[in-house]
Amino acid sequence: MKYPPIQYHDYLHLDQLLKSQTLRSETLGTKAHDEMLFIIVHQTYELWFKQMLHEVDSVLATFSESSVPEEKMGQAVARLERVVEIQKFINGQVDLLETMTPLDFLDFRDYLYPASGFQSLQWRLLETKLGLKMDQRFSFQDSPFFKQLKSDQQAEIQSALTSPSLFDLIQNWLQRTPFLQTQDFTFWSLYQDRVRRLFQEEREVITRNPRLSDQEKQRSLHQTQISEEMFESLFNKEKFKKLQQDGYFRFSFEAIHAALLIQLYRDEPILQMPHRLIQALIDLDEYMTQWRYRHAQMVHRMIGQKIGTGGSSGHDYLKKAAEHHKVWKDFFNLSTFYIPRSQVPPLPRELMRKMRYSEV
Amino acid sequence: MKYPPIQYHDYLHLDQLLKSQTLRSETLGTKAHDEMLFIIVHQTYELWFKQMLHEVDSVLATFSESSVPEEKMGQAVARLERVVEIQKFINGQVDLLETMTPLDFLDFRDYLYPASGFQSLQWRLLETKLGLKMDQRFSFQDSPFFKQLKSDQQAEIQSALTSPSLFDLIQNWLQRTPFLQTQDFTFWSLYQDRVRRLFQEEREVITRNPRLSDQEKQRSLHQTQISEEMFESLFNKEKFKKLQQDGYFRFSFEAIHAALLIQLYRDEPILQMPHRLIQALIDLDEYMTQWRYRHAQMVHRMIGQKIGTGGSSGHDYLKKAAEHHKVWKDFFNLSTFYIPRSQVPPLPRELMRKMRYSEV
Amino acid sequence: MKYPPIQYHDYLHLDQLLKSQTLRSETLGTKAHDEMLFIIVHQTYELWFKQMLHEVDSVLATFSESSVPEEKMGQAVARLERVVEIQKFINGQVDLLETMTPLDFLDFRDYLYPASGFQSLQWRLLETKLGLKMDQRFSFQDSPFFKQLKSDQQAEIQSALTSPSLFDLIQNWLQRTPFLQTQDFTFWSLYQDRVRRLFQEEREVITRNPRLSDQEKQRSLHQTQISEEMFESLFNKEKFKKLQQDGYFRFSFEAIHAALLIQLYRDEPILQMPHRLIQALIDLDEYMTQWRYRHAQMVHRMIGQKIGTGGSSGHDYLKKAAEHHKVWKDFFNLSTFYIPRSQVPPLPRELMRKMRYSEV
Amino acid sequence: MKYPPIQYHDYLHLDQLLKSQTLRSETLGTKAHDEMLFIIVHQTYELWFKQMLHEVDSVLATFSESSVPEEKMGQAVARLERVVEIQKFINGQVDLLETMTPLDFLDFRDYLYPASGFQSLQWRLLETKLGLKMDQRFSFQDSPFFKQLKSDQQAEIQSALTSPSLFDLIQNWLQRTPFLQTQDFTFWSLYQDRVRRLFQEEREVITRNPRLSDQEKQRSLHQTQISEEMFESLFNKEKFKKLQQDGYFRFSFEAIHAALLIQLYRDEPILQMPHRLIQALIDLDEYMTQWRYRHAQMVHRMIGQKIGTGGSSGHDYLKKAAEHHKVWKDFFNLSTFYIPRSQVPPLPRELMRKMRYSEV
Repeated sequence: MKYPPIQYHDYLHLDQLLKSQTLRSETLGTKAHDEMLFIIVHQTYELWFKQMLHEVDSVLATFSESSVPEEKMGQAVARLERVVEIQKFINGQVDLLETMTPLDFLDFRDYLYPASGFQSLQWRLLETKLGLKMDQRFSFQDSPFFKQLKSDQQAEIQSALTSPSLFDLIQNWLQRTPFLQTQDFTFWSLYQDRVRRLFQEEREVITRNPRLSDQEKQRSLHQTQISEEMFESLFNKEKFKKLQQDGYFRFSFEAIHAALLIQLYRDEPILQMPHRLIQALIDLDEYMTQWRYRHAQMVHRMIGQKIGTGGSSGHDYLKKAAEHHKVWKDFFNLSTFYIPRSQVPPLPRELMRKMRYSEV
Repeated sequence: MKYPPIQYHDYLHLDQLLKSQTLRSETLGTKAHDEMLFIIVHQTYELWFKQMLHEVDSVLATFSESSVPEEKMGQAVARLERVVEIQKFINGQVDLLETMTPLDFLDFRDYLYPASGFQSLQWRLLETKLGLKMDQRFSFQDSPFFKQLKSDQQAEIQSALTSPSLFDLIQNWLQRTPFLQTQDFTFWSLYQDRVRRLFQEEREVITRNPRLSDQEKQRSLHQTQISEEMFESLFNKEKFKKLQQDGYFRFSFEAIHAALLIQLYRDEPILQMPHRLIQALIDLDEYMTQWRYRHAQMVHRMIGQKIGTGGSSGHDYLKKAAEHHKVWKDFFNLSTFYIPRSQVPPLPRELMRKMRYSEV
Repeated sequence: MKYPPIQYHDYLHLDQLLKSQTLRSETLGTKAHDEMLFIIVHQTYELWFKQMLHEVDSVLATFSESSVPEEKMGQAVARLERVVEIQKFINGQVDLLETMTPLDFLDFRDYLYPASGFQSLQWRLLETKLGLKMDQRFSFQDSPFFKQLKSDQQAEIQSALTSPSLFDLIQNWLQRTPFLQTQDFTFWSLYQDRVRRLFQEEREVITRNPRLSDQEKQRSLHQTQISEEMFESLFNKEKFKKLQQDGYFRFSFEAIHAALLIQLYRDEPILQMPHRLIQALIDLDEYMTQWRYRHAQMVHRMIGQKIGTGGSSGHDYLKKAAEHHKVWKDFFNLSTFYIPRSQVPPLPRELMRKMRYSEV
Repeated sequence: MKYPPIQYHDYLHLDQLLKSQTLRSETLGTKAHDEMLFIIVHQTYELWFKQMLHEVDSVLATFSESSVPEEKMGQAVARLERVVEIQKFINGQVDLLETMTPLDFLDFRDYLYPASGFQSLQWRLLETKLGLKMDQRFSFQDSPFFKQLKSDQQAEIQSALTSPSLFDLIQNWLQRTPFLQTQDFTFWSLYQDRVRRLFQEEREVITRNPRLSDQEKQRSLHQTQISEEMFESLFNKEKFKKLQQDGYFRFSFEAIHAALLIQLYRDEPILQMPHRLIQALIDLDEYMTQWRYRHAQMVHRMIGQKIGTGGSSGHDYLKKAAEHHKVWKDFFNLSTFYIPRSQVPPLPRELMRKMRYSEV
């Protein structure tokens, strides 16, 4: 009662909100019943994009600090997990849109030209703030989305591009992981030794296997060698640079090491939240990928495809975006370098001490 | 290219839409991060309510005609099924709202007074247009929702209350089912005979059962008698009136008969769509009930409960609404009167002919 | 009470069912907690596959008849819609599997060799019975799945391959559509006329457009010509054959015509269920595609990818399968040939009469 | 290759699993198509129950220790969250079951007597292991579920009843929270002071409010007093005992205090995981409640209701179970005692130090 009273209707600006649906079919021709669904689906998408940006912005602020105190980790993780839940939820809206048949869509499709979901500023901002770079987008020279935006919208994208993205900030945060810089920390040589021993054992198993012919043994040993060489890239900065050039990893040598440490020793109290943070980012990438892919399917279903093509340009773009616009692919690829937990070397005693609550 | 070009941003009125989130906590005190989520959740609810009303209005229009041609049934069913899909979908939004903890809610709860979801005009309109009557609402004398609305909103509800609801129109449509009025149609006596024979058989099975004691036989025979008496209400207009007075059925004697016919003979071509229509209405009731119940749970979780009560008044209201605000309970209760398909009497030949395509 | 009593536990064979989880990690080494999840996820998949096959088999039986009576359509559609609901539901199980991290998977992964989901007989049967042909699978010569099956399983697949698939039966059913054979039915010439007129109008709009340069007009007119030529394939059996050779359509000329008729005139009573049947098949393809794609993502996340490849062979296979193993692509591509409903020519009077209930 | 090879089919015991569906309708009468769905739905439920028990058992083991090291918290929380995801997922199976209509159910319902979901041992074990006590079940004297189980199943329940439940172990764990026993920790008096001051302020706001009549002021002040008295129960062990007797709280005085501390100071590093643990338990209760409620709805829809009753006994039982069989209601009710974060007193410096990583 301390504050001026407010009604639900006014609080939510419902007058404004519920008058924001103008059916072009009605204005310019014959009212098409399903245009309302089309509008509502896209408007709710945009409201949820706003919410996602709200969360991502707050996480960006947290990680912009020169150090992120542990007491802020719980909140940052919870907010990223909320973004994941929202993305997962709105993936289900495609089902609602598909209750509209292609024939129903044709009733108003012509009135919409050239409006297109490609012009969604908020989605582009979201991708950009998370860390999708212009030169990573599959068609960058003649950027299909940038040119379609209004000039103030382009400026907003430009500003996001020149600010540190979540990818940049997470990289910085990973690089700062103190446990990697401890002088006496010989972890990586320990890990390397263990990996080499595992491969040595694998070679012996193959060589001794009586069920394998010589040719099969050769083939298996060759496979093993290739795998071992991959692991070597992890221990050798020069070889690692090659992985970066090939687009296999975008993170720095140090950041990848920190991420691997977090994932392998996730049960240490101080790494529990960082582990969850990484899981949330993997989930987010996966659901955003699904979103693009589902829309690709939906476009095919809705407007068919020209003969001799892999679908409309929209269908094609969305499929390629699903494939290539991953921001956190490094975390997916990192799985290549795990070894079974039973083989993971124990942490040095001093290091473990720092990862736990000493006094409780 | 025949029409003036339009951009995505303008088509969706995004300027207006994305500026409709005013955080009261920011205006009146300290910005509470999660107030944005609270607003977006309710705004997307309202947008979906608008869509549901859009569909329900169109179905109302179809069923307002003095006869509903079969070629309109497919569309009417598809639109009701869409309403069902939307209701099912937004039930999942409760999960998103619950990513906000009670403590986060407390950060801005005081600023919202006395705004409340009870003031949602669109939800009330939806309930009303579907057929929820004022005297059916569990607290009708001192109507908790009506008094909280603005006067123009009250007028809108009043107007909906005095127009035929979907319940009314579906009842009319059922009553018009031509197959019930065929002179020589002896279906109900056939059905009654069959039911009586089934109960007779059941009595014999009980009486002859060597594993049952006399006392058990008495009890079973008593149960059978009660069940048979229930079925008698279906064949006797006076007894049926009793069911209506008890609130067991709201539909008329004729409408219930038609509904039973549709459900039992749903495979007849002309009844396939009517059957789906009834299924959609049952689904809708079920998902609306879940929506109310989930919100009751959410309110308990979010604000706890006063000692000695069954929760807050909000929690309590929602639980009772879940229980009592069913519009299509008749269709649920109708299941009581089905008999196994193997026992359902075949339709008279002449009648069956009318339900099929004669010439194809 | 007429039948011998049965308990829940025995009815469901729970003794057997709940003893079917043997953790290889426990038998051969150290028990890995998450192996249970891995087993349960795959076992529930297989139970649902059994249910899907149960439904598909019953629909196959219905459509195997030389004519499908209308009174069987409601049931067939309901069963296909159930298959769709199941597929949609189990897509969500991927989320459950992903609560297992790659490191948890490593705890037992070695024990599973060479078991793999590729060896699921039921999934292959499902694909085959729906209509996926061997030469349509992206790697058919050296069939990766066939060779991994046991010989009795191979025989089962072989038998399914030599029986009519749902694709075959639906094609037959479409070809039998009586409305296409009516002597005086001039529908296709009507449709062709309408299409040509629409293209003519489009050309005029382009030519008269003062905002377009000559070069732009040339380009637009060229596009229009390409589109028009596509439509011509629909009216000319020779040109249509070209579409089939390119893999654009698999259905026959007649089947495609029938499908187009159903989709364009879906409101006619006799076409309402056929329309729903086609919608269900489109939905099924879309959810099966999502299932494959989601598993591709999951594999990437779970085991990473070798350098210089597009992922593991599993990841790669699943992505290609998502792309190419569509059974009902024809129905997706059909959308290319719709014209706005306002332009669709009315049905001849005599034909319309046959599609409606004459006597009611 | 170190281990004997295994095929997918054998690994999953598919021979056994896929032969565990015996349709009683087929054995005893006429095969009812939908009995398969009925069986598969319940079998997949039981498989998921097994998985949930697998997770709950492992969490029970963790919390059975006399102290739970922080490095085990991440895993325990992840496993409970998995149980939540499973429960949420299988709630969706009700939709699949409801694709079976009441008439389809009648085709085989008689063959199932007296089998019933009430006889599910695993579900009862799950409830019991989580902490549902016999005397908390709404019908305990003449226990409807206990008597229906086989004797070895009853023994299993009995054993679970006499072992510490998760509720018991969580209570112990809460009571052990070290921060509550610190000698100089004056937290509760601080909290009490703050609460009293807040109520004092509220009284002043009411008294000074010029818009309120004297009568309204009296009423508001009375409400405030009731609320304040509730809070007093939190600080006074005798008054708290009253809350326990009324069933408002089941936890001990100390456990409730610890839970409140965790929720209010959840951002402290050492409390982040405990906070998530509590959230997971709240979520679990909510989804289990929904499951019961959805099944109540389903039963009403499937078999109708007898006149003059609130539904069948099954419907009735499930609704009451939804209402009363909450295990973690304390955590819901705890929300009643939160105060706005801006008012929460800061932790004593020494205490805060112990909740953070001192040396990193």
